[in-house]
Amino acid sequence: MTSIKRCTIRPYRCEVIERTLDIGRLVLENGESLEAVKQHATIYGDQVTADKIVLVTHALSGNSRAADWWAPLIGPGRLFDPQHDCVICINTLGSCYGSSGPDDVRPFPTITVGDMVNAQARALHRLGINYIDIVIGGSLGGMQALQWALAYPRRVGTAIVIGAYDHFSAQGIALNALGREAIRNDPRDGLSLARKIAMLSYKSDELLEERHSNRIDRNGGSKYDVEGYLDYQGAQFASRMSAQSYVCLTKAMDAFDVRGYPIERTDPRLIFVGISSDWLFRPERVYEASLRMQARGFDARYVELTSRDGHDAFLSNGALIAGELLAI
Amino acid sequence: MTSIKRCTIRPYRCEVIERTLDIGRLVLENGESLEAVKQHATIYGDQVTADKIVLVTHALSGNSRAADWWAPLIGPGRLFDPQHDCVICINTLGSCYGSSGPDDVRPFPTITVGDMVNAQARALHRLGINYIDIVIGGSLGGMQALQWALAYPRRVGTAIVIGAYDHFSAQGIALNALGREAIRNDPRDGLSLARKIAMLSYKSDELLEERHSNRIDRNGGSKYDVEGYLDYQGAQFASRMSAQSYVCLTKAMDAFDVRGYPIERTDPRLIFVGISSDWLFRPERVYEASLRMQARGFDARYVELTSRDGHDAFLSNGALIAGELLAI
Repeated sequence: MTSIKRCTIRPYRCEVIERTLDIGRLVLENGESLEAVKQHATIYGDQVTADKIVLVTHALSGNSRAADWWAPLIGPGRLFDPQHDCVICINTLGSCYGSSGPDDVRPFPTITVGDMVNAQARALHRLGINYIDIVIGGSLGGMQALQWALAYPRRVGTAIVIGAYDHFSAQGIALNALGREAIRNDPRDGLSLARKIAMLSYKSDELLEERHSNRIDRNGGSKYDVEGYLDYQGAQFASRMSAQSYVCLTKAMDAFDVRGYPIERTDPRLIFVGISSDWLFRPERVYEASLRMQARGFDARYVELTSRDGHDAFLSNGALIAGELLAI
Repeated sequence: MTSIKRCTIRPYRCEVIERTLDIGRLVLENGESLEAVKQHATIYGDQVTADKIVLVTHALSGNSRAADWWAPLIGPGRLFDPQHDCVICINTLGSCYGSSGPDDVRPFPTITVGDMVNAQARALHRLGINYIDIVIGGSLGGMQALQWALAYPRRVGTAIVIGAYDHFSAQGIALNALGREAIRNDPRDGLSLARKIAMLSYKSDELLEERHSNRIDRNGGSKYDVEGYLDYQGAQFASRMSAQSYVCLTKAMDAFDVRGYPIERTDPRLIFVGISSDWLFRPERVYEASLRMQARGFDARYVELTSRDGHDAFLSNGALIAGELLAI
């Protein structure tokens, strides 16, 4: 079953199409298989007349409406302009915004970043798209962009990997594990705590200090402002994210490691973007990954974004990212 | 009541005295008062014949047995040698290792770093000590050392403040709040999770990567090695620390801010030690605090410890700290 919903969203003149694609049975990397897999896609621009096809891969808490959360990159006159380009984002396998995930398939198997990308490739094939000029994503989305280049080297022009590299760090694995522990300890309020733990790793000391310092909560009461901020963020997140999806997607991040991925072809150009204040995906590691990919034969380059927003800069500094990419 | 327990601990030839001092009623900074306050002290060396009196102030999870957890600094031939110096460490008010805290006084009031130091001053007075040549501590212990210099400027020769500065950061306040939330969410296992959250802020990405990378747990099973490490640390901590003390002491850290402390005298020399890879108490902020103290008239200097151990370097790199301090 494929449902299509068309809508026109200002300020985009282009049509925005929401499609839920049934890609059938998917054999997973661990040998298990998932039946009747759904992939929910949002498509900005006309795929037939487009100058280029851009696939946006989203992060842990994202959804397919990329122009909503990455507005500085997608829109009229922006880096990806739906009047000329066709920009597609697919809700990742295991998530909870329209694609198959642990809330509608029980029990849901352990999946990998490779599985996510395989599902996307099948969904794009359903759309008649077998070549993407650019795949771009940050964080877990960056892992997917890199996986795309390695798994489908004939089908990718350029992969842009932002705030991510070719594996996941011990520190990142530990943070994810603590988030899952918070969910296990308290199924009701644990997801909120998990989000707060993660959020501290997405920000920088400098940013938090400037915004909150040790002031008392702006909304009154006895807590500190930074506590009030995190409480709000945690509650918001818990109301829109599935705890099961959170567990599923963080496990896929933990297991991501393509340092030994067998290289068949090195056609895609790789662009790694490190963020200067990123504590979760340190820029040094992003740079080292670009060198490893060069050593394996890829045209890989490294760009560093100077920001004090920490890992979150891949979302909050979209205009800076667009500027850096335009300059390449 | 004052109890004295003498013991001789190898490799120290000196006597080690454990004393629990009753300092009576203590009026707190918030105006409340605590009755029959106990302060538990460990004393290395002879206070009468000593060349100098050294007060060690401990951190969040520490106790008064400083030579156990700071062995590279305290011992024969070391920076503080109990054969010549008298080294005293007092379990901080609110903790759970012999001094009054929330486990034996209910309800226990909200206390401050100022209260901790006032209690220590009273305990030292009971011992007949009204001048300390050096007060030294890291983290919460560093906050106490600085508080000593400001609150008792005539009674301190040098205050050595390691991995700490004149206030606490928004990020640090947030991390403490998440630890307390974990305890509230799950009174049974929450303290372990709180410790794990905190531990990630004490380490560095580099250290964790080298020790654990994304390897599977060395003790087998399906978890990652870094998870196994944190699980072990969390369980150990939960078995030796009181959740109530954890809540009490973290709140005192949160509220610490002596940037506006009224300066009467500037007799003490201040030495601030920043740790290059410290993410919780960033070295830039330690340096800035030393400049603020200079501007307020103190002889304050800044030393930076180059370490990849993160905040924990104040414990794990004791020999390096001793070396830096000897070089001054």
